[in-house]
Amino acid sequence: MIPRYSRAPMTAIWTPENRFRIWFEIEAHATEALAELGVVPASAAKALWDWWATKPAIDVAAIDAIEAVTKHDVIAFLTWVAEQVGDEARFMHQGMTSSDVLDTCLAVQLAQATDILLADLDALLAAIRTRAEEHKLTPTIGRSHGIHAEPVTFGLKLAQAYAEFDRCKARLTAARAEIATCAISGAVGTFANIDPRVEAHVAAKMGLAVEPVSTQVIPRDRHAMYFAVLGVIASSIERLATEVRHLQRTEVLEAEEYFSPGQKGSSAMPHKRNPVLTENLTGLARMVRGYVTPALENVALWHERDISHSSVERYIGPDATITLDFALARLTGVIDKLLVYPARMEKNLNKMGGLVHSQRVLLALTQAGVSREDSYKLVQRNAMKVWESDGQLSLLELLKADPEVPLSDAELEEKFDLGYHLKHVDTIFARVFGA
Amino acid sequence: MIPRYSRAPMTAIWTPENRFRIWFEIEAHATEALAELGVVPASAAKALWDWWATKPAIDVAAIDAIEAVTKHDVIAFLTWVAEQVGDEARFMHQGMTSSDVLDTCLAVQLAQATDILLADLDALLAAIRTRAEEHKLTPTIGRSHGIHAEPVTFGLKLAQAYAEFDRCKARLTAARAEIATCAISGAVGTFANIDPRVEAHVAAKMGLAVEPVSTQVIPRDRHAMYFAVLGVIASSIERLATEVRHLQRTEVLEAEEYFSPGQKGSSAMPHKRNPVLTENLTGLARMVRGYVTPALENVALWHERDISHSSVERYIGPDATITLDFALARLTGVIDKLLVYPARMEKNLNKMGGLVHSQRVLLALTQAGVSREDSYKLVQRNAMKVWESDGQLSLLELLKADPEVPLSDAELEEKFDLGYHLKHVDTIFARVFGA
Amino acid sequence: MIPRYSRAPMTAIWTPENRFRIWFEIEAHATEALAELGVVPASAAKALWDWWATKPAIDVAAIDAIEAVTKHDVIAFLTWVAEQVGDEARFMHQGMTSSDVLDTCLAVQLAQATDILLADLDALLAAIRTRAEEHKLTPTIGRSHGIHAEPVTFGLKLAQAYAEFDRCKARLTAARAEIATCAISGAVGTFANIDPRVEAHVAAKMGLAVEPVSTQVIPRDRHAMYFAVLGVIASSIERLATEVRHLQRTEVLEAEEYFSPGQKGSSAMPHKRNPVLTENLTGLARMVRGYVTPALENVALWHERDISHSSVERYIGPDATITLDFALARLTGVIDKLLVYPARMEKNLNKMGGLVHSQRVLLALTQAGVSREDSYKLVQRNAMKVWESDGQLSLLELLKADPEVPLSDAELEEKFDLGYHLKHVDTIFARVFGA
Amino acid sequence: MIPRYSRAPMTAIWTPENRFRIWFEIEAHATEALAELGVVPASAAKALWDWWATKPAIDVAAIDAIEAVTKHDVIAFLTWVAEQVGDEARFMHQGMTSSDVLDTCLAVQLAQATDILLADLDALLAAIRTRAEEHKLTPTIGRSHGIHAEPVTFGLKLAQAYAEFDRCKARLTAARAEIATCAISGAVGTFANIDPRVEAHVAAKMGLAVEPVSTQVIPRDRHAMYFAVLGVIASSIERLATEVRHLQRTEVLEAEEYFSPGQKGSSAMPHKRNPVLTENLTGLARMVRGYVTPALENVALWHERDISHSSVERYIGPDATITLDFALARLTGVIDKLLVYPARMEKNLNKMGGLVHSQRVLLALTQAGVSREDSYKLVQRNAMKVWESDGQLSLLELLKADPEVPLSDAELEEKFDLGYHLKHVDTIFARVFGA
Repeated sequence: MIPRYSRAPMTAIWTPENRFRIWFEIEAHATEALAELGVVPASAAKALWDWWATKPAIDVAAIDAIEAVTKHDVIAFLTWVAEQVGDEARFMHQGMTSSDVLDTCLAVQLAQATDILLADLDALLAAIRTRAEEHKLTPTIGRSHGIHAEPVTFGLKLAQAYAEFDRCKARLTAARAEIATCAISGAVGTFANIDPRVEAHVAAKMGLAVEPVSTQVIPRDRHAMYFAVLGVIASSIERLATEVRHLQRTEVLEAEEYFSPGQKGSSAMPHKRNPVLTENLTGLARMVRGYVTPALENVALWHERDISHSSVERYIGPDATITLDFALARLTGVIDKLLVYPARMEKNLNKMGGLVHSQRVLLALTQAGVSREDSYKLVQRNAMKVWESDGQLSLLELLKADPEVPLSDAELEEKFDLGYHLKHVDTIFARVFGA
Repeated sequence: MIPRYSRAPMTAIWTPENRFRIWFEIEAHATEALAELGVVPASAAKALWDWWATKPAIDVAAIDAIEAVTKHDVIAFLTWVAEQVGDEARFMHQGMTSSDVLDTCLAVQLAQATDILLADLDALLAAIRTRAEEHKLTPTIGRSHGIHAEPVTFGLKLAQAYAEFDRCKARLTAARAEIATCAISGAVGTFANIDPRVEAHVAAKMGLAVEPVSTQVIPRDRHAMYFAVLGVIASSIERLATEVRHLQRTEVLEAEEYFSPGQKGSSAMPHKRNPVLTENLTGLARMVRGYVTPALENVALWHERDISHSSVERYIGPDATITLDFALARLTGVIDKLLVYPARMEKNLNKMGGLVHSQRVLLALTQAGVSREDSYKLVQRNAMKVWESDGQLSLLELLKADPEVPLSDAELEEKFDLGYHLKHVDTIFARVFGA
Repeated sequence: MIPRYSRAPMTAIWTPENRFRIWFEIEAHATEALAELGVVPASAAKALWDWWATKPAIDVAAIDAIEAVTKHDVIAFLTWVAEQVGDEARFMHQGMTSSDVLDTCLAVQLAQATDILLADLDALLAAIRTRAEEHKLTPTIGRSHGIHAEPVTFGLKLAQAYAEFDRCKARLTAARAEIATCAISGAVGTFANIDPRVEAHVAAKMGLAVEPVSTQVIPRDRHAMYFAVLGVIASSIERLATEVRHLQRTEVLEAEEYFSPGQKGSSAMPHKRNPVLTENLTGLARMVRGYVTPALENVALWHERDISHSSVERYIGPDATITLDFALARLTGVIDKLLVYPARMEKNLNKMGGLVHSQRVLLALTQAGVSREDSYKLVQRNAMKVWESDGQLSLLELLKADPEVPLSDAELEEKFDLGYHLKHVDTIFARVFGA
Repeated sequence: MIPRYSRAPMTAIWTPENRFRIWFEIEAHATEALAELGVVPASAAKALWDWWATKPAIDVAAIDAIEAVTKHDVIAFLTWVAEQVGDEARFMHQGMTSSDVLDTCLAVQLAQATDILLADLDALLAAIRTRAEEHKLTPTIGRSHGIHAEPVTFGLKLAQAYAEFDRCKARLTAARAEIATCAISGAVGTFANIDPRVEAHVAAKMGLAVEPVSTQVIPRDRHAMYFAVLGVIASSIERLATEVRHLQRTEVLEAEEYFSPGQKGSSAMPHKRNPVLTENLTGLARMVRGYVTPALENVALWHERDISHSSVERYIGPDATITLDFALARLTGVIDKLLVYPARMEKNLNKMGGLVHSQRVLLALTQAGVSREDSYKLVQRNAMKVWESDGQLSLLELLKADPEVPLSDAELEEKFDLGYHLKHVDTIFARVFGA
């Protein structure tokens, strides 16, 4: 967890305090269910909740001190709670195993984290949509291979990003369901010492599904899938960040990250305005992606469980969610405040002397009866002259002057109309944003 | 693609012949739609389909030879088709760009591959279920950290695997939907030169959804998600394979891979019967997982597209699906023919002198009024004697002889009943396999 | 950085205080060199060093507050130093760019971290060697595929680990040289505003080599190589940790992690003694490996540099070195205190009824003139009987009784001598540890 | 292995024929050593070499057919050789285990592959050096963050690449030494059935070092290190490829991949000249990097060995070396034939109205007694005007007109001299290429 890449609400989820609060709730709900089943006295559950109702502070240092002796975190926690609550606390944790608490707690934490990430995605989607609608018909050059291709609009670029993050949201919603399960099934998952109804009760109270079959632990394919989805989202962040970085290049400069008054781009070069936020997002994406493989390696635990996954999750549980939360919020800010330069877009669009219209001419030639091969050659030989002139020559004028081109000046001029390329923008927007 | 880890039906999907067939169908359906829209003559589509009805062989070498000159695969293919079909073929590919064909083809290939993988999963699930029901009540020791914990059944182990692969199937079904989309939207996705209805027509005919917004290419977050799911499935394969490897260890030997009569385990040591299939699966899982990161790196293409994803997909499209298909089938065979040794399971279960029942005693002590801390110490001091005797001493007898243990012999004996641990097996099976 | 997996000396390297101290030294040495070259007054360097000689505390909060305005860390630091030192400080950083400081500082930090890691490796090697010599001739079964193969000694297992970590040390020494370079070359590496002699001076003072050609930044292939080496070391840690985990399995129990008196293995099962340290190491190895790919992705910075590497390094610089330091120390402790059970090793070695000697018999048969194929069949048919008896039958007795075996009882008995397998232990130890 | 990304000499290394040839040589050399030691008759080795001297064709199909029965590759090979050579062949493989052959063979194959890769690097270095010297003083703008910074030369860009690949060569040379070891140590590495002198003999004959301690297999940390180095090299390839992709962007166009006469950039857009080779290299780099993690996961084999590494190496042995060989050769071709446009470089360099000289002015101001803070503000306020004019205004003219700037026109003009930036090019070239 890097403070500068962290936001408070997400970080709070991963504090010891929040973890211990969730542990308590799981234990208290379980005790409640055990009391209903007659396994423990009802007074035990009551004692726990009564104490909880006093909103007691969690003394992390005290719990850590006990753990330093017992070398076992859940026993340390239970010991501390027993010190606070008194004798009734001995009925806590009856028939349970540590992982019942730990794994169910992790499920709650990941679900909490995911709710923040889903809200982040909503905010990002809203920001993208606003700017997409603003620039729905702002023409700009579409580029394949970094080379000018044909016109698009800046709104279309953002519509693509919207659709991509909308898919990310659907994936994350599914991933949340993957990890939001509760297991209270005992040392090897047989419910030998605890009735399955306890699990059902705790699951319902904690907003989780019941894990159909656990083996002391919740199976780690769920978590692997979850972190893989975070890796995909990070990659989509990198894509949009990379787009901004390209657009801000000195030679392109069609858009820029917002540059605040006090900001300095370089200690040496005062004129610099660098896309540092999106470069940063590129790096953060690498990190979130980097957590996918350890999560995949966690799946093959030995037999009913080993604990190798635990240290991995101590890192990537917080690091992946905190970093992704920060990155989504940063990207939202970048899009929200992005400086967009339509005039520069138009200038760039026109700089290739009309080459972007070459395909339309090609099509018109074939429709006028020229073979595909000959049409291609006819267009290419003129296009190459324009290309080599660095946009000083005009494709339209060259084609008009080419005696082998069987199209009138008017026919040719019609092929160079920008509106032609934008006629289906409405269709695409309707697909992406709804009618 | 490694022949020894490949199966024919999956391999066939990735042959040039299959790719060119799909290309043709996309082009012919598109021409058909263009004819319906009056853009090209109906005779063009008819000519294509008439030729296709003759079931022409695809001359891969001829197409390759053309590509060697044009350095462009789709143009090479179109040129070859035109040579076969004649003049009407010039209307093919009107307004389309190569990626319309390539990306839609990849979607079809991945969908075909996924259908095989889904069938593989069905076969694996069936094999696991059969063996799970066979061993539903075969007692065996549950192990955490590789150390004996409490009894489970071998059927429960398999039920867990069933639930895990059932989740994998759901993930793969979702992943299929992710990648089964059609894009026929032109050079930068604006439909400038092609009506969106062509895309809708081709999509319907090819069994795909329409890509809402493409940018010459189908966005690669879809493929990243797809290969990530394959990586998760591979990790689940590794988990079950690792279980078998552990069970076959000399000292454990509770199960073994089937060993065919002619087979030799070692050129040097004739007694060896090694879990080579599941070790192999462990390695194959590493490979399929290794393809996840390149797929994630493919997402951030530049602007409307660059072609860096293409080489990656030439490797991982075939390699990931072929390897996973092989691995799933191999694992199915392993489970199907697995030699299971219930007698050895029972022997291992009993070898720790009853230590596996320690938790029940602990619980009984607390219920008899002993504090949790004291109960723990009471059990642990006797358990440690058993442990140090390597199972020669009996926990039950030691507890009976311990004057501080406030339980009668009969009460103690009841705590060492195996049936106690199996009473919820039905519940778990019902959760996993249905009532 | 996870406190529970961190040790103080390594963590200290990554504190802001240490970073700022290194920044100061770089700036002061550079000012010194500039003064020698006559670019700035000698009094400037003197003022800096005079202030430094007062051992001033670094006010991180104050520097952070300045950065919150300037959004530039080096400028914030220089501003703060100027506030402390006074007017002479304006000569600091003449002709330098931020990266001159940042990258050279990272080189120093990584070199410092590496020195700790090298010492960690030395301690680990010493611990392994001590235990290897102690158990040089302790017989134990060698296992391939988890199946008993032929006898080895426990010392040989450790000799292998020694050789492996000795290679790791050589790799880390080379990796240190990779990253210990100094770049003071200005905004794009041309030395336009700063004389190369400044770089040489700072490099010498900071114990670094001169970076032959930098581009504002030190090229990131160096760091990629560095973190890749950490990933390899982590994988070797996982190997030895996995060995211990296997040896501690209930059925094997040839060695155990030291179990301290107050320790509890399980809140539910008091008899449990789990290999939690080595399981933990397995997870930590996954993390350190997970940092390799982001480091590799950092190499392809755009043009003379982009800043995407920076956020990645803020994570993996500390996380990889702190985790690896902790893991090496933990592994050293595990080996140092490992409980080794030679009696159990002997028992396991003998449990297969002499099957481990099968190869020797095979060899003797071929040397006695039996064809290789027939020898194999002769041994295998007897070996299989022993195998199926779970070690109750004796291979030696079966072979004596087999009329087709053309060897006398004495000849056969000689083939079952354990010493035969240990005769080259000295040779191997000499190779690994020196004569 | 993808044929289009493969070259014949590297592919040949990974054919069954080459593998079997190496197997034979290992076996024959071992038999020779055994004969010298008196273990087998000298006639056995002679028989093998005599047969080999006839340059027999390797009948892969026949060997595969035997393996289909025995399910063991080395036994199948030995059986086939015995069929060819006759009775004397039964002395082959005495005391050896399959891995002695397999692992030593892999070492030979990887060494062969590395020799090709080292030659590839030499060719690449030569190409880079030629172009670097050609453009040693061709001015071009240096860019940080994709934004114009200060002038460099195109030769300097290439010198950086040269230094980077020179480091790669040193790493690969070290990696070759890592994997070029020979192990002939028997079933668990104890030399129980084979004298260490056999290993030493085979090692010397095959050009390998002796593996100090093996455990049936050569330890996989060696291979992990090897493939990690390939991953680093791939990342350096991506860096240079990315540079070319950027330079070829329509708006930049300072360099272009060579475009052959028959080539078509796009089936739709005849004017397109796309950097497809370097985009392709970007994808290939992802693949080679993707093989690093499976190689790292291969290290932690169980006990003396399991065979999980084997399937991984069947993929990545060929795939990583073949792909990297192809990529290095492709990159060499790109650099060799790269179209470089100095006029365009100059045009781009000048397009920002002299902003690239801002740092020099900043420095001059501080040297003229203005405080650093004020100097920064003075430069920045003029720089921003130029920036916002899109290079239409001139920084030099604005500074001349700024009454607060305490520098004469002549002093200012001197600060805008390009030569100033190139004065240390010789120094850097001498560092990189030698004096």
